[in-house]
Formats: sequence, C-alpha cells, structure tokens
Amino acid sequence: MLKLYGFPVSNYTNMVELALLEKGIPFEYVLTFPEQTPEFLARSPRGKVPFLGTPQGFINEADAILDYLEDIGPARRLLPEDPHVRATVRALMKEIELYIELPARACFAEAFFGGSVPAAIKSKAREDLQAGFATLRRHARFAPYVTGDTFTLADIVFLYSVDLAATVGKQLFGLDLLGDLPAAKTLLQRLGENPHVKAIAAKREAGTAAFVAAVRARLQATT
Amino acid sequence: MLKLYGFPVSNYTNMVELALLEKGIPFEYVLTFPEQTPEFLARSPRGKVPFLGTPQGFINEADAILDYLEDIGPARRLLPEDPHVRATVRALMKEIELYIELPARACFAEAFFGGSVPAAIKSKAREDLQAGFATLRRHARFAPYVTGDTFTLADIVFLYSVDLAATVGKQLFGLDLLGDLPAAKTLLQRLGENPHVKAIAAKREAGTAAFVAAVRARLQATT
Repeated sequence: MLKLYGFPVSNYTNMVELALLEKGIPFEYVLTFPEQTPEFLARSPRGKVPFLGTPQGFINEADAILDYLEDIGPARRLLPEDPHVRATVRALMKEIELYIELPARACFAEAFFGGSVPAAIKSKAREDLQAGFATLRRHARFAPYVTGDTFTLADIVFLYSVDLAATVGKQLFGLDLLGDLPAAKTLLQRLGENPHVKAIAAKREAGTAAFVAAVRARLQATT
Repeated sequence: MLKLYGFPVSNYTNMVELALLEKGIPFEYVLTFPEQTPEFLARSPRGKVPFLGTPQGFINEADAILDYLEDIGPARRLLPEDPHVRATVRALMKEIELYIELPARACFAEAFFGGSVPAAIKSKAREDLQAGFATLRRHARFAPYVTGDTFTLADIVFLYSVDLAATVGKQLFGLDLLGDLPAAKTLLQRLGENPHVKAIAAKREAGTAAFVAAVRARLQATT
C-alpha cells in the first residue's frame, strides 16, 4: 500500500492527499515533519514533505507524485486525455506554483509565524503576487473549474495555493488579490464543499495551532 | 508545423529546442523576446518565453511544453516508461528548477547584466543554491546521465540550469558549487559534445553580446 508522508498543515501534502482520495487509491498517512537529518534526506533529498512510499521506493516533490499517481492508473484520471488540454492543465499548475505559491511562500514566516521577512523580499513578493494573480485571471477559465468543465490537477493546486496566497496578500500587503476574480472565489467555495476537501480542512484546522506554536518557538530560538 | 517562440539566450528556450531536436520533431523557430503587451500576454499569460504554437493553440511554461512533446508521440521518448523511474526523472527536474534554477535566476540581474540585487535576496539565494546543489549530489546518479543510463528530460534541465547556476555561484559568491560533483562536470562535458547542444550553444553565443547590452541599457534606464 502507498504511504503518504507529510502533515496536515502542509498545503503540498494536502494536494497529494486530495488526489489520492479523489482517485480512491488506498494509502496510509504517516504523520511526518520535515527534517534535515541524513535518514530523512535519504528519503526526501531536499528534506521536505510530502513524499510517497511505494513498493519501488520513495518519490518526492508533489508534482512528481501527482504525475506518478496518474501514471500507475487505473484510478480516476485527473489529467485530460487530449495532449493540448493536458498541456493547458500543466501550464496552469506551473503558473500557480511559480507566480502565486512561491512568492507567497517567501513571506510565510511573517504572515503566519510571527517572524520577519526582509523588506526587499516582501517588496518583490508583492509585485510577483500581483503579476501572478493577473496571469491567473488571463489564463484560467473557471467554467466552473480552472481549465474548463472538468476537475483536474490544476484545481487541486489552485485550491491549496491560491487561498493561502490571497491570505498572505491581505495580511502583509492589504491587497485583495481575488477582488476582481469572483469566479475564482466561487470555485474555492465549490471545492470547499467536496467531502474530501472538508475532511482535509478539518485535519488541518485541528493541527494548525500546535504547528504554528512550534514554528514560532523555533523562529524565536534562532533570532 | 510546431512553432517555438523564444530567443537563443533564454535557457528555458534552449531546453525546449533541445527536446525538439533530440526527438526529431520538425519546428519553426520564431525569434521572440518577452513582452508585457496585451497581444503577447494573450499568447503567453505571464509574458514569458518559450511558448509553443500548435494546431490547437499556444502552450506556455517550458515543463508543460516538454510534457506535451512526450504526449503527442511517436517521436523518441525522453521520459522512461516505468512510472517509478519516470517519477524520479520528474523529481530531479523539479529539484533542479526549484532549488538551483530559481535562486540563481533571482541573481541574474547582478551576475550578468550589471544590475544590483538586494543583499537579503542574494543572501537567501546563496543559502538556497548550496542546499540545491547538496540535493543534486544526494539524488542524481550520474551513471552517466542524471537518473541513470538513459538520457532524459532531467538531463536537459540539468544541462541548461546547473551550468548557469554554477556561474552565478562563482561570480557572485565565489562558490565552486560543482567542486565536489566531478560526475556532474563530466556529464556537462559529455552533453556539450552532442551536436544539437553544440548548435544551440553556437546560436546562444552569437546572440549573447547584443542581448546583454540591451538588458543592461534597459536596467540603466529604469534605475
């Protein structure tokens, strides 16, 4: 049986868990926090979660795991068959990660954990986030899903990256990044009603307070 | 016929061009520099290159293009058939992009164009680059290719990201990031002997001086 190593406050772990649940692939959830120990790095070479235990060995990087789950079949497909439509899904996944998730993530320490992010990094993140949301407005169809009428991997990445990034935009910069994207808000609500998404959110909420306290304590100890 | 929009100094354009050449897929190269005009953004939603013109429409983001070229077949495969080996290739591609290409890219303005990058960003990039090369050392096999005995998309990403990032490390930080990775240096040399790689390098060299001058001029005009 596949093993998902991660923790419920990790949005990348959430992505893989939702894909597994939507596909109906059985798995064991192994609660795991990132480490930089040799043992951990032997399983996940950059010391991150999620990673996946398979009969052939470990797989790290959420994208690589999501593709692996597609490749092993025969579960429900989350990538369209047509190569061009498929490429559009992949382009949206990539745009959301590079231009929305990563700039937001550069500011997590200050937005969520009481830390402080250098002004130069925040300033670049603010600019990148605005360009990233403009890209989403230009490219996503929200009809009602990100790339059309079918739920795909792009919706999973959208769900777990865009909401969090919008929170960063509001808390750090006073920006309403979803302000002119009502269709994106509607999709977030729709996805939020999915029972698997609800179950993942409940686990995340239950784990958030303890996780934030632990990270805050670690940040204070190192500054 | 497919059209590749990009320019020879863009390392992401180089990746797609090499994949097309290695696969033997005919294409037209349309020399194109990034713009933020509405016309351009309608074709590439973040205003970047490369993007690909196909009979069904445009595809942006290098990764999405590389996957599209795999999906349309029946040309030479650059991703292995086995899902687990395939996942390893994808994980390496992702690690090289997130942990090597992106931190290096954050410093391009100073490393190559006479601009200046804020100290906070450089300091984070330096740390990230060292962690990124450590990840590569841990995960890549160099036997002799990145993931084993077969040339894959991971080698293409490796070729065009790692060399450039090592240059950034040397120029900005005095780091020899490939110093303890002799097998990576050997692979760079081996890949450099590939006739398609040579042809792409010759075009890049011919275009570099004019490109650097244009970017330097633009940077000076805006600072």
